[in-house]
Amino acid sequence: MGKGRFEAFSDGVLAIIITIMVLELKVPHGDTLAALAQLWPVFLSYVISFIYVGIYWNNHHHLLHATTTVTGGMMWANLNLLFWLSLLPFATGWMGENHFGPVPSAVYGGVLMMAAISWVILQTLIVRTQGRDGVLQRALGSDWKGKVSPVLYVAGIVASFCVTGLAQAMYLIAALIWLVPDRRIEKVLAHEHEAH
Amino acid sequence: MGKGRFEAFSDGVLAIIITIMVLELKVPHGDTLAALAQLWPVFLSYVISFIYVGIYWNNHHHLLHATTTVTGGMMWANLNLLFWLSLLPFATGWMGENHFGPVPSAVYGGVLMMAAISWVILQTLIVRTQGRDGVLQRALGSDWKGKVSPVLYVAGIVASFCVTGLAQAMYLIAALIWLVPDRRIEKVLAHEHEAH
Amino acid sequence: MGKGRFEAFSDGVLAIIITIMVLELKVPHGDTLAALAQLWPVFLSYVISFIYVGIYWNNHHHLLHATTTVTGGMMWANLNLLFWLSLLPFATGWMGENHFGPVPSAVYGGVLMMAAISWVILQTLIVRTQGRDGVLQRALGSDWKGKVSPVLYVAGIVASFCVTGLAQAMYLIAALIWLVPDRRIEKVLAHEHEAH
Amino acid sequence: MGKGRFEAFSDGVLAIIITIMVLELKVPHGDTLAALAQLWPVFLSYVISFIYVGIYWNNHHHLLHATTTVTGGMMWANLNLLFWLSLLPFATGWMGENHFGPVPSAVYGGVLMMAAISWVILQTLIVRTQGRDGVLQRALGSDWKGKVSPVLYVAGIVASFCVTGLAQAMYLIAALIWLVPDRRIEKVLAHEHEAH
Repeated sequence: MGKGRFEAFSDGVLAIIITIMVLELKVPHGDTLAALAQLWPVFLSYVISFIYVGIYWNNHHHLLHATTTVTGGMMWANLNLLFWLSLLPFATGWMGENHFGPVPSAVYGGVLMMAAISWVILQTLIVRTQGRDGVLQRALGSDWKGKVSPVLYVAGIVASFCVTGLAQAMYLIAALIWLVPDRRIEKVLAHEHEAH
Repeated sequence: MGKGRFEAFSDGVLAIIITIMVLELKVPHGDTLAALAQLWPVFLSYVISFIYVGIYWNNHHHLLHATTTVTGGMMWANLNLLFWLSLLPFATGWMGENHFGPVPSAVYGGVLMMAAISWVILQTLIVRTQGRDGVLQRALGSDWKGKVSPVLYVAGIVASFCVTGLAQAMYLIAALIWLVPDRRIEKVLAHEHEAH
Repeated sequence: MGKGRFEAFSDGVLAIIITIMVLELKVPHGDTLAALAQLWPVFLSYVISFIYVGIYWNNHHHLLHATTTVTGGMMWANLNLLFWLSLLPFATGWMGENHFGPVPSAVYGGVLMMAAISWVILQTLIVRTQGRDGVLQRALGSDWKGKVSPVLYVAGIVASFCVTGLAQAMYLIAALIWLVPDRRIEKVLAHEHEAH
Repeated sequence: MGKGRFEAFSDGVLAIIITIMVLELKVPHGDTLAALAQLWPVFLSYVISFIYVGIYWNNHHHLLHATTTVTGGMMWANLNLLFWLSLLPFATGWMGENHFGPVPSAVYGGVLMMAAISWVILQTLIVRTQGRDGVLQRALGSDWKGKVSPVLYVAGIVASFCVTGLAQAMYLIAALIWLVPDRRIEKVLAHEHEAH
């Protein structure tokens, strides 16, 4: 099964998710700066979600770069990931419109958590196909980012019920950790090239 | 006529359908778990529809893998399939918002049925182009999935007017049958490769 | 300038236009067949518009098949075409929600007319680049379809103010004329291949 | 990292932004010409924004034509550009619905400004990768368009608070300057080809 259409479909869905989120930023009725300013929680939520979808697209790009064959299992693991990411516009809108209230903030963290778990499943499936000595396994190394971020999501979910804004800070920190593109995969791939 | 743009357009429409459906999951006014819980029928409908579009995309991928030329007839058979699938967000929203009421559940089954019939038309057109001994014909074999699912859709439509939830169970079973990717086509194609 | 990205962008916009139109088919409040039946004018408008976008995509596919280079002028002629087609969801929704009232029906015809004119501009630009003896010019021949359809659009616009439904019949006839894919281009291209 | 997926994702997002903007053109309740005419400020805003997204797509196409490698930095600079452009549908709708009122007009200019700055960042990153003697640097030359347009945006933002419509005129002039595709890059690239 070709990698091309797999990437094209994922790119399509991610591009639509990232753009559809902006529809939650509803045009205010008034034409004053005050009317616009009231939108700040929705806007901030949009910024966080935009960064997350950007990160997922970026890493998806890297992950598939290190993949040669696409199995049926990977296809469904990918659809599962896209499913959870497709809930992000909803979770973003709900969190923003309720000014970072406890339940919506926790639900937002829950969606991020499910997406992270789905990501691990997809990654594991690809690693398993390549074997323990495969390019991707070596590239991932200890995968500390993959281990730290779920902890931050859980911390964010708990924090949602304590201090307003603390959960959002957690989610933002988890995003910033990932913001730096994953050079490990690039490095190992470059190494591979030299070896041949 | 090239297969590339045919696939790209289909991928685009399927990616948009799958993502636009989430817009039916409207942000609730309250910020409590109870407000979120009220959305469960819309959410469940979304899950079923997401699986269906995923299946169609997956099988579309396989079907075109076994195709070399794209005729004008295939193009319109494909647009016909995309037309019925484009009604899925509407049918999903109507069924979800009415808590699986009889008429919306039957209409949802009707849309699934029309999409299934459109699929058969597209498949038949491709088989006919390749001839009775073509790769696709041998790959499909008896095509029992293609014969069982319309029965389940009709059963679901009838069940809509009897017991609430029974129709949804039927639609879910029909989806699960298809969930396993169609290895027949892959097998025959792999066989073909060995023969040469 | 490569043809690939030109096609990809056009495919993307056309795929989104065709799918966004379905959002005008708003989920009815009631859950009865009667509530659904009230949507018939919006549904019929959607069907006509879906066929039109399908035709434009199909012919766009053929047109670019006969094109080798993409100039800056073609790029803007193409964006102009996409602009008018992007108004189709709006025109479709307005016509459907007003049960084919005179002004919305005429405006719908006007949008079809502008798209047709934009198509002619794009086609002319491509023909001019290739020269009078170019593949496309010979493939188009007398281009009777291109000459008949504007007459039907004007007839439809006038009919909008006379008999309800007559305009829609005109638009449907104009669509049916185009429904048959343009085999002229394919034929001349095939001929070309043989000659070499 | 491949250029292909980078272009595909950008094309996808730009295609969705350009099409989603039309959703701000809401179907009027009445079916008269007067009801339609009331939409003119939203329509005019849509036209301006459509031209802008068209220009960005066109120039993005040219920019990447002169690029061979895609670094992680370019990826985020590109996402930053797409972020600001994704706010265009919102800014367009707000400006249109408020009949070019001062604050919405200034905010619209602000979004254009941020997009222009993001563009310069992306361009600078690509030039830096290629070195001062690189193809793109020579192609850009003095880059007078890139220097004049921010001045026009600032002038437009200031004008928003003085005379209604003056800001829109500024934004339109800035668009017209860019409307002509950037032949400099094409020329230098063609030159390069001859030299080899």
